[in-house]
Amino acid sequence: MTAIKSDKTLQRRAEAVIPGGMYGHQSARLMPEGYPQFFERAEGAHIWDADGRRYLDFMCGYGPNLFGYAHPGVDDAYIAQLRRGDTMTGPSGLMVDLAEDMTRMVSHADWAMFCKNGTDATTMAMMVARSHTRKAKIILAKGAYHGAAPWCTPVRRGTTQGDRADQLFCTYNDVESLDSAAREAGGELAAIFAAPFRHDTFVDQSEPDLAYAKRAREICDETGALLIVDDVRAGFRLARDCSWSRIGIEPDLSCWGKAIANGHPISALLGSDKARAAASAIYVTGSFWFSAAPMAAALATLKLILETDYLEHTQRLGAQLRTGLDAAAARHGFGLRQTGPVQMPLILFEDDPGLGKGYAWGAALAQRGVYVHPWHNMFLCAAMTEADIKFAVDAADAAFAEMRRNTDWPAPAALVAAGMVKAG
Amino acid sequence: MTAIKSDKTLQRRAEAVIPGGMYGHQSARLMPEGYPQFFERAEGAHIWDADGRRYLDFMCGYGPNLFGYAHPGVDDAYIAQLRRGDTMTGPSGLMVDLAEDMTRMVSHADWAMFCKNGTDATTMAMMVARSHTRKAKIILAKGAYHGAAPWCTPVRRGTTQGDRADQLFCTYNDVESLDSAAREAGGELAAIFAAPFRHDTFVDQSEPDLAYAKRAREICDETGALLIVDDVRAGFRLARDCSWSRIGIEPDLSCWGKAIANGHPISALLGSDKARAAASAIYVTGSFWFSAAPMAAALATLKLILETDYLEHTQRLGAQLRTGLDAAAARHGFGLRQTGPVQMPLILFEDDPGLGKGYAWGAALAQRGVYVHPWHNMFLCAAMTEADIKFAVDAADAAFAEMRRNTDWPAPAALVAAGMVKAG
Repeated sequence: MTAIKSDKTLQRRAEAVIPGGMYGHQSARLMPEGYPQFFERAEGAHIWDADGRRYLDFMCGYGPNLFGYAHPGVDDAYIAQLRRGDTMTGPSGLMVDLAEDMTRMVSHADWAMFCKNGTDATTMAMMVARSHTRKAKIILAKGAYHGAAPWCTPVRRGTTQGDRADQLFCTYNDVESLDSAAREAGGELAAIFAAPFRHDTFVDQSEPDLAYAKRAREICDETGALLIVDDVRAGFRLARDCSWSRIGIEPDLSCWGKAIANGHPISALLGSDKARAAASAIYVTGSFWFSAAPMAAALATLKLILETDYLEHTQRLGAQLRTGLDAAAARHGFGLRQTGPVQMPLILFEDDPGLGKGYAWGAALAQRGVYVHPWHNMFLCAAMTEADIKFAVDAADAAFAEMRRNTDWPAPAALVAAGMVKAG
Repeated sequence: MTAIKSDKTLQRRAEAVIPGGMYGHQSARLMPEGYPQFFERAEGAHIWDADGRRYLDFMCGYGPNLFGYAHPGVDDAYIAQLRRGDTMTGPSGLMVDLAEDMTRMVSHADWAMFCKNGTDATTMAMMVARSHTRKAKIILAKGAYHGAAPWCTPVRRGTTQGDRADQLFCTYNDVESLDSAAREAGGELAAIFAAPFRHDTFVDQSEPDLAYAKRAREICDETGALLIVDDVRAGFRLARDCSWSRIGIEPDLSCWGKAIANGHPISALLGSDKARAAASAIYVTGSFWFSAAPMAAALATLKLILETDYLEHTQRLGAQLRTGLDAAAARHGFGLRQTGPVQMPLILFEDDPGLGKGYAWGAALAQRGVYVHPWHNMFLCAAMTEADIKFAVDAADAAFAEMRRNTDWPAPAALVAAGMVKAG
């Protein structure tokens, strides 16, 4: 790579024409020192930055990559449909095929609507629930991420009081707080949103407590509100069905996106018959929502989901990673808090309130060609191998050793400035 | 095509797995008798329905098709980048190239942010204006379309009072109504939204009045609010710059989408330096916003916009169509109201309050292989030829003749039921 294409040069040019140089969840501003902002290539489980350095990528595009980047089967299906007809004056018949396949795979679902962003799906879920109940209030778990529209973006700047009117908050897995929010709704409850597991940033992840999920279902059944599982991030990474199928609780609506077409742009809202009339009464749409090529890619991806052992494979690799990292950390006197499903791990250090250890470890791993995230859940993909995991564990071992040689682990200045952690 | 793939069969299957059988702007439910819902192929200026019937398509995907469907140059650029790296853990350097190209082309713009839906761009514009002013109120023109999120969708079902709090309305091109709305904002004005021309459905289109546009600019300059041109639908169809460059008025923010990558999924918000800090302070993002392949397609499309006579070509063809249709209509004793820029025409019949004539004409044209819209502006594309326009005018002539043979033009039942027109 030439200097002109280097990450540093691109970042300088980006400063001039993109606010802050970059925005959104893929901004490298809050990442450890030396993390690249721009990538030039991706294949299988690897990404290459603008300087040509290769990384084993434990972010998988923040979720879309389930079967490996540039998967030939999925991408060939995309391209064949692109050449035939993509964004037309109406959908292709593939939309019907895809709605049939999705509703066949996801137990609670009788119908499907397709969109582009995960936020489109969660916003539509909210609208369908309000349309169904003719009520306004929704219950959300504090700190849960459901997208970046004015009603849900985690940063308030640029949003209004009206955007958040009619929202009530509970604590994930805390039945009492859920009951209290439902009481507060006072007969005006439209929906309860639930993450498939607690996958908030910066904190230990937790599986859904069965009592909590059951109570959410009960409250909805008692009040006529709709239960919504936001499976955008975790969908098909935990199950070949809605993630809450693992605990036997069926929502009325579920939100999908990210991995359902292995990186091609499509998201979906699935619903049960109960909510069908309400869904057909709202007006939602988008310029590219009915494009056929992403639907062809989704159909190819669903086939892989049904016909391969991707799920068991990523679970095996996730267990190998977790065990390997725990052993490596212990060898160097570090304690790790590895939480979440093994194939969607979040890794924090013990005694690391300012995340200084996590950042030092991430920086040392990036230098060794492994891309991890210090405060967001990560993702394994089916293109990873046992050898890849061994490579990562070996790199982690070397990174822990380096941390023992240089024991200065300050809280990252950018996180402190953003008020996300406290200094020292 | 086999019966299994026919439009009728697909519609029946869709009824079972998609609410209402279809939703959004591409639903055929409110279209004339015999209009197909599903399309199987698209090339140049033509689309083929699920039964294999070909149409000269005057909707162009509702805007995305500017240079012809399946444009080899644009699609090759897309595919090459898809094979290299598309939805990765960060953007590729193409994002910087694209932001540079867009800001170079659009006079008022100093920076760019990319997203997926047109609605993403208009919602971001609203957020940036509120972030910049720390105020909440926005002025919209009654009946103008700015997307389908809860704050702007034309159907209220599923939305709340809070979603529309802080909205004030004026009448497009009516200076007094604009002043009155600004007064009503009482020092709390964040933004004025403006369509590039009045392209509301069901009504005659109108070009922006200079006095109106100037007054909008003045109010913003006096109050510190931001002026937003929503160029999602018309962008690059009227000018190689923001559409309001034609009348010499520069907005602070402009919204783009639809045609900027000739059908590939990408939209954008462009802004001036004044709004840069406010833009970098909001949190907006999406799973596929930083995908590289649509950016490669946008770069190829911008090159075509700069280097071909697509604009003059579509204007010539638009004029040919308008003149030809007027003459054909007159020959058969019909009067047409053809409004809007010739390359984005809306066609209504004189004395047709229930749209019965428009629907009869559309149905007769569809049978003859020409796809027109009875109440939404249409789009010409650069792949159309003089021969195509002659074909359309000849088909229109035959359609008018058929209408004279069968003079029963009832108001369409679906429109009456939806409250969009009055019966009889």
